[in-house]
Amino acid sequence: MTDLDDGVAVGPLLAELGQAVLTLTAGTDARLLGLPPGDLTVTIGVGPRLVRMVDPSLPGAADLPQFSREQIAPQARGGDLLIQICAGDALVVPIVAAALLDQAGDRVRERWRQSGRRGSNVPVDQSLTAPRNPLGFIDGIVGPHTTAQEQRDLWLAGPAPVAGGTIAVLRRMELDLPRFATLSVADQEAVFGRRRDTGIPLSGGTIASDPDLGAKTPDGRYLIPADAHLRRAHSSVVGVGLMLRRSYGIDEPAAGLLFISFQNDIRTFTNTLTRMDNGDALLPFTTTTASASFLILPGFDQQHPLGATLFH
Amino acid sequence: MTDLDDGVAVGPLLAELGQAVLTLTAGTDARLLGLPPGDLTVTIGVGPRLVRMVDPSLPGAADLPQFSREQIAPQARGGDLLIQICAGDALVVPIVAAALLDQAGDRVRERWRQSGRRGSNVPVDQSLTAPRNPLGFIDGIVGPHTTAQEQRDLWLAGPAPVAGGTIAVLRRMELDLPRFATLSVADQEAVFGRRRDTGIPLSGGTIASDPDLGAKTPDGRYLIPADAHLRRAHSSVVGVGLMLRRSYGIDEPAAGLLFISFQNDIRTFTNTLTRMDNGDALLPFTTTTASASFLILPGFDQQHPLGATLFH
Repeated sequence: MTDLDDGVAVGPLLAELGQAVLTLTAGTDARLLGLPPGDLTVTIGVGPRLVRMVDPSLPGAADLPQFSREQIAPQARGGDLLIQICAGDALVVPIVAAALLDQAGDRVRERWRQSGRRGSNVPVDQSLTAPRNPLGFIDGIVGPHTTAQEQRDLWLAGPAPVAGGTIAVLRRMELDLPRFATLSVADQEAVFGRRRDTGIPLSGGTIASDPDLGAKTPDGRYLIPADAHLRRAHSSVVGVGLMLRRSYGIDEPAAGLLFISFQNDIRTFTNTLTRMDNGDALLPFTTTTASASFLILPGFDQQHPLGATLFH
Repeated sequence: MTDLDDGVAVGPLLAELGQAVLTLTAGTDARLLGLPPGDLTVTIGVGPRLVRMVDPSLPGAADLPQFSREQIAPQARGGDLLIQICAGDALVVPIVAAALLDQAGDRVRERWRQSGRRGSNVPVDQSLTAPRNPLGFIDGIVGPHTTAQEQRDLWLAGPAPVAGGTIAVLRRMELDLPRFATLSVADQEAVFGRRRDTGIPLSGGTIASDPDLGAKTPDGRYLIPADAHLRRAHSSVVGVGLMLRRSYGIDEPAAGLLFISFQNDIRTFTNTLTRMDNGDALLPFTTTTASASFLILPGFDQQHPLGATLFH
């Protein structure tokens, strides 16, 4: 997460960063020090302040509001530029971060950085796997996984300068692992609304099954409790689209996770979290310590520089 | 890295931590939240202050001296307890850290923590692999890799309370990747004294070959330059034993590495670093931001609690 110094020309900076991303991912950049980039990807996002400079009516122009259970230092809220670096070879990540920060030079100041790792993947269906989160549960099962769902809920359709982009929300949270571990496995499962070992909803079926939110026990209790995370955050309950979620386990500054969601309407996130604030059993185990949202710009290549649609 | 509060009984604390390590590594601990521990290992070390409380003449009783190119906050120097947690599944690490800190409760205060990852391994010989470091070079090629070398240079022979243990040195350092990347590959290789892609010493042979420190070009220049890291830090040049080195790439607080060495004589480390201070070409690319040494206690099991040989 970085901030831009006043007076920096955003367009040329983004174009340069995009060019560096191309040479780094292609493996032709000397700053890789000979390491193969492998499956390296770099995602660059633009913070609300910069979006508002172009057009306050664009998606991504609004700052993320505050929510409950936040303990966020001023430095860890918001920011002008997101640089998300993902690679199977963890050694590649700091090398690419150093190369991109060096490219930006004194035009940006680093605001905060966070490294994280995904757990081992568990198969969900023929085309989808999902990893466990630091609470031991399989995470990211529900999302816009079909092309039609991606078109509907993930990618921005317009206006033209942002078409094909998306909105990213980042939330870093500490997790109270010792307290969660004192719960019985059944009580842990009631918090999430899924089985811990298999990921199957407490209403039954398979891990890929839609939860049956109306299913009850013979004595009339919901199989998926009223405060279960699966119910509180369910898109049909909240009345929003699906968000593509990626959670990364983190060790520092404390055990927790770095949550990133991508969606084409910020209300998909804000309405979900507002509803969780009002009674999600998972929330009391979390303390959010960083929060930010970014407009992820449309894809780019040599002929179409990063940011050219927005910052002429 | 943690500190003990005054008046804490060290023996019972270590015994409890050791017991928790046994249940965590066995996979029978509810605090694992159902995750398989896999290849989890936990190494616990005791800092100089605690060793001196038992016997100031024991190995590990002396604080590590200061060296050049250090920018170490008081909090990041030394410490009473080292808890090193290694696992192939990165998600396991913060869960185990939380479990052990929870076990210790208010008897300890966390001093600093650092997560790191090893790069992909490169084969060195039939029994040894070594990963690349964040500067792109294969790291940890030379070391006590045979049983005879381990007996001679790695494991403490005595006195009895520490026999079978070893001394660990931890150094966290930032690396100036952008400046290193401006060097030509040949100049980078001159810094290390090895080829970047293969790890072969500049004097030739294979990656596993002993460097020929006397080999010269036809016009009389050393093939391995006088200030190359391979020469400055070579045990035969320094006149010490071999150290078992493990370097982990780190992203935070900046790109760099967490260096850990294990040796049965602290002078193996201190004499090597003193010699590097006097002209190792690698050193100007490093800034050390944390430094500590610990006595690693002998192995333990249900019948022989961790720390029982030292803290009765």
